[in-house]
Amino acid sequence: MLGASGYAGRTLCALALGHTGLELAWAAAGERRGARATLGGRSVTFVGIEEAPLGDAAVVFSALPHGASAPWVARARAAGARVVDLSADLRPGHPIDAAADATAADTYGLTELARDDLRRAAIVANPGCYATAVLLGMLPALARGLVAPGATVVVAAASGVTGAGDTPRRDLLFGEVTENYRAYAVGNEHRHLAEMRAVCARFDADVDLLFTPHLLPVARGILATITLPLAEPVRDPAAVWRAWYAGEPFVEVVAEQPELRHVAHRNAAHIAVAAAAGMRRPTLIVTVAIDNLLKGAAGQALQNANVLLGLDECAGLPS
Amino acid sequence: MLGASGYAGRTLCALALGHTGLELAWAAAGERRGARATLGGRSVTFVGIEEAPLGDAAVVFSALPHGASAPWVARARAAGARVVDLSADLRPGHPIDAAADATAADTYGLTELARDDLRRAAIVANPGCYATAVLLGMLPALARGLVAPGATVVVAAASGVTGAGDTPRRDLLFGEVTENYRAYAVGNEHRHLAEMRAVCARFDADVDLLFTPHLLPVARGILATITLPLAEPVRDPAAVWRAWYAGEPFVEVVAEQPELRHVAHRNAAHIAVAAAAGMRRPTLIVTVAIDNLLKGAAGQALQNANVLLGLDECAGLPS
Amino acid sequence: MLGASGYAGRTLCALALGHTGLELAWAAAGERRGARATLGGRSVTFVGIEEAPLGDAAVVFSALPHGASAPWVARARAAGARVVDLSADLRPGHPIDAAADATAADTYGLTELARDDLRRAAIVANPGCYATAVLLGMLPALARGLVAPGATVVVAAASGVTGAGDTPRRDLLFGEVTENYRAYAVGNEHRHLAEMRAVCARFDADVDLLFTPHLLPVARGILATITLPLAEPVRDPAAVWRAWYAGEPFVEVVAEQPELRHVAHRNAAHIAVAAAAGMRRPTLIVTVAIDNLLKGAAGQALQNANVLLGLDECAGLPS
Amino acid sequence: MLGASGYAGRTLCALALGHTGLELAWAAAGERRGARATLGGRSVTFVGIEEAPLGDAAVVFSALPHGASAPWVARARAAGARVVDLSADLRPGHPIDAAADATAADTYGLTELARDDLRRAAIVANPGCYATAVLLGMLPALARGLVAPGATVVVAAASGVTGAGDTPRRDLLFGEVTENYRAYAVGNEHRHLAEMRAVCARFDADVDLLFTPHLLPVARGILATITLPLAEPVRDPAAVWRAWYAGEPFVEVVAEQPELRHVAHRNAAHIAVAAAAGMRRPTLIVTVAIDNLLKGAAGQALQNANVLLGLDECAGLPS
Repeated sequence: MLGASGYAGRTLCALALGHTGLELAWAAAGERRGARATLGGRSVTFVGIEEAPLGDAAVVFSALPHGASAPWVARARAAGARVVDLSADLRPGHPIDAAADATAADTYGLTELARDDLRRAAIVANPGCYATAVLLGMLPALARGLVAPGATVVVAAASGVTGAGDTPRRDLLFGEVTENYRAYAVGNEHRHLAEMRAVCARFDADVDLLFTPHLLPVARGILATITLPLAEPVRDPAAVWRAWYAGEPFVEVVAEQPELRHVAHRNAAHIAVAAAAGMRRPTLIVTVAIDNLLKGAAGQALQNANVLLGLDECAGLPS
Repeated sequence: MLGASGYAGRTLCALALGHTGLELAWAAAGERRGARATLGGRSVTFVGIEEAPLGDAAVVFSALPHGASAPWVARARAAGARVVDLSADLRPGHPIDAAADATAADTYGLTELARDDLRRAAIVANPGCYATAVLLGMLPALARGLVAPGATVVVAAASGVTGAGDTPRRDLLFGEVTENYRAYAVGNEHRHLAEMRAVCARFDADVDLLFTPHLLPVARGILATITLPLAEPVRDPAAVWRAWYAGEPFVEVVAEQPELRHVAHRNAAHIAVAAAAGMRRPTLIVTVAIDNLLKGAAGQALQNANVLLGLDECAGLPS
Repeated sequence: MLGASGYAGRTLCALALGHTGLELAWAAAGERRGARATLGGRSVTFVGIEEAPLGDAAVVFSALPHGASAPWVARARAAGARVVDLSADLRPGHPIDAAADATAADTYGLTELARDDLRRAAIVANPGCYATAVLLGMLPALARGLVAPGATVVVAAASGVTGAGDTPRRDLLFGEVTENYRAYAVGNEHRHLAEMRAVCARFDADVDLLFTPHLLPVARGILATITLPLAEPVRDPAAVWRAWYAGEPFVEVVAEQPELRHVAHRNAAHIAVAAAAGMRRPTLIVTVAIDNLLKGAAGQALQNANVLLGLDECAGLPS
Repeated sequence: MLGASGYAGRTLCALALGHTGLELAWAAAGERRGARATLGGRSVTFVGIEEAPLGDAAVVFSALPHGASAPWVARARAAGARVVDLSADLRPGHPIDAAADATAADTYGLTELARDDLRRAAIVANPGCYATAVLLGMLPALARGLVAPGATVVVAAASGVTGAGDTPRRDLLFGEVTENYRAYAVGNEHRHLAEMRAVCARFDADVDLLFTPHLLPVARGILATITLPLAEPVRDPAAVWRAWYAGEPFVEVVAEQPELRHVAHRNAAHIAVAAAAGMRRPTLIVTVAIDNLLKGAAGQALQNANVLLGLDECAGLPS
């Protein structure tokens, strides 16, 4: 595990330590090398990143910061490991992807979309937390071609503060976040938009995306509220989503509106689908809740590793 | 003051007690009659609603529950008082409005839109908290005819829990709300939508509204995120909003994204306007923050009363 | 499970459903009979209390309200079940204990103190959440006779709101609790004090207890801060606590100050012991953190049932 | 104002800007020099500390960090200003006090104790936030000699996170503080203890103090819970406190337990006094709530400046 000391890294180490089919070979951290942490009830000492025996692990996870991860992915791959990269570096639409062929990911690891590719994957780009929520909400509509051509899909999403990592920042202090709420990256400025667009393009969806993230005064969780203008009315839309996700262990189409507390500490996505009243154009509102550190990061990374290694996909994952 | 014991009623009593040009004649409550409360540093005893000397006040405010307010508005009016009704009963689009001509409001009290009418008003329907935030964000676009005809204006809004009042409900307990977030009234089911549509209709705006409210784990504040598809590109859109609101004492077009904490405990609306990148159709994102108990309820009610009585519009209002 | 619909009841049902050696025979609720809940990932329908087949279960848990539980404990016992009662009714120092011999508990289930008795117990009075935290902090001192005779043990404790149950109350609404903190039951008025005194008496400890609880703006967790005036100085007091709790699976003497987040969602007690500087009389400060719904209620109840039934004491319990 | 950019400094600037009898001559900050902030509705640009025209102000406030403040107090004094220092540097019991005679404070500014001295003061050491709460709770007992000689006064106090300032620290991030609670500086290690002891000594009180602070998941507020063993029983103890504080504009002895929300954003101390039941030695529990940024820092500093300058003591202060 590279980048083991941040929120996603620690969460992934804790999951790996509780996984009966995996062993945590080592946990490496940059600034906090040498520090000890209690993860999943066990004491772990972080080694330095340079000292990490990359070749000792069948799968190397990297939760290094965006920009710093790609070179280490390349080294881990060169050392013979398969890699799941939680950074944005190798995701579709990111510059590093184009620049460095050698370290390009072969699979974008939205597990529910990529399961077949994952079995053979050498380098997996683990999706961003917002992209996971939004794409899980949109996938059935994309696959069935439900969205009106030329339409704008408006997404308002809200995330807990762990989505911003644990590097000290004044605007993330408790005193600044409690009793507060605000939008950010307004006007389609968020890094995860490129991933969302790339997956839409894969389905030849003729849509514009308008994505506005917000910062919630909670520790963990993302709720995405997605507006889908439809080409034509869909009878019982929730049934369409249920059918698409039938058999998926970590995606549930729910009758009540999803709530963060119902997915917290679980590798789960809860999705509700509703038709809007009083509109000329038939429109669905799809709401998706995930835990940004689990299905939005470490949980999905482990889910991907399970598939990649041919293990039970659910092993080690709280649902 | 009728309905003085809830959040909005108590806030309004406190403001009135601190207002040098007004006196609080009486504060009436239903269930909590006889109870004492410390409001604005002074001790107030609630009289029963039936005992309230309606004719003793130049202006009667009602924050009685929706459905219960209209008959009392009629009685107060019959007793000679001018009335500001904070309930939904007399707002445009609500059934009671049509049913009982005698108690119809003559003014919808979004102060910035209704200032001239307010001076002569006998019965003011004080806007809903969400409607206030959304309409303040949309007014310049409506007035200037900026929105593309036939377009859908998508609004995602989030409110603190005081918006739901202080009647005990299990889903509003601290243990249910902390670290949680969810949408509600999904699919255009919210009561305030009728007000928003009525104001849009007044401007002959050919738009559909799609409004999705969410419950935030904060005590007070509303943030509305409004997507405005434009008929054609607007150069420097923030300048349009600034020009429209020039001279308004309680509306500020801000450069940074509005935050709840900057408007909490103030009768203020903060608005930011941004253009969205990567869209075929020019689109603005307008974000609006207000304190739901002040500019969204009691503050605006007092602002309206100030205008109605010919007092300084800012008197008694924290900005 | 009697009283399955409250916080403690639901937590216990969820634990039981995840316990490989137990089966949840039925879950009974009063007001919420017929309601369905998702507990531990499974859907459970609450039967009415009157319909509960008391004799079908080897162990009946009761989380009925204080005052209502004792008669049902008697009925369950009469039906042949062994009973773990989470209410205060049968705990030492409570009036019902004296009044109704037939339903007197034979064991006060502070597991770490009562393990031997539990194996033969017919009726277990499960300790109160505050009592659990305070007594776990004091036990080594009581057992070793460390406290100065005649001294006052001052305890300040703070609890999350789930400790007050999920019956709607205005003072527990999110809007009343967020950004707030206050003491309650000040002056030794709290119900759990009788249990603490009874255990102190069992050790012939000549102490006065002064217990002040506080309400924290968190969902779950208790932190107790206990001041122990010593008969004489103790060298390495943490070692005394560590020795006393050696081998205990759910009690950990920690080096850093205990934090609620480290014990949340775990059946764990974290204890730190420190000597106070600048005091004439040698004095220890013992701090104890537990999750009030787990080690303070449902977790300890299941731990007790495990011992009572001869199962692995840790089975089904997250640590 | 030196050190204007932190929580206390910004709060003090905002108060000064709203004070009709004072003008904010300049606001100086270290790291954040040149930055602009909106304080009390007005835009303020921070000058560098070196550029601050120390002699231009009748009163210089310093909220510079502990350790950095004393030399600037000396310079401001040399420039002819009277000084209110919010840092710990010049408070009783702090090393700098002894080391640098030239900059010793002549007055410890617990206003209710020091009012007469303040009128002539040249340098005021503004009390620490915890010390303010604890001493206001103890003063009547100290003055009347109520505490049992040789007794230990146990104080458990809890503070919101703004008490730790706004310098980014990982342990103060929202994600680390929400749903958490912990003690710190356990064993009489807190810096404010020296002030409390010094004031006790001034009254020749023969007591030991045991002070344990805790970190609350709230932005602002301190609640101190003080145990006072009495020399002999006191009839109607609340009346004693009420009598002692009669006429004080900012101290209120309240009937219900003090709550943080009732003192937030106010320069107020709420105090309750209760006798403990079931104790051999008569004992009082005194609980005190203040806003740590107002009565615990900036508010008291302005209150002191008002007295010092001969202005209305309440001017510019929200109560």
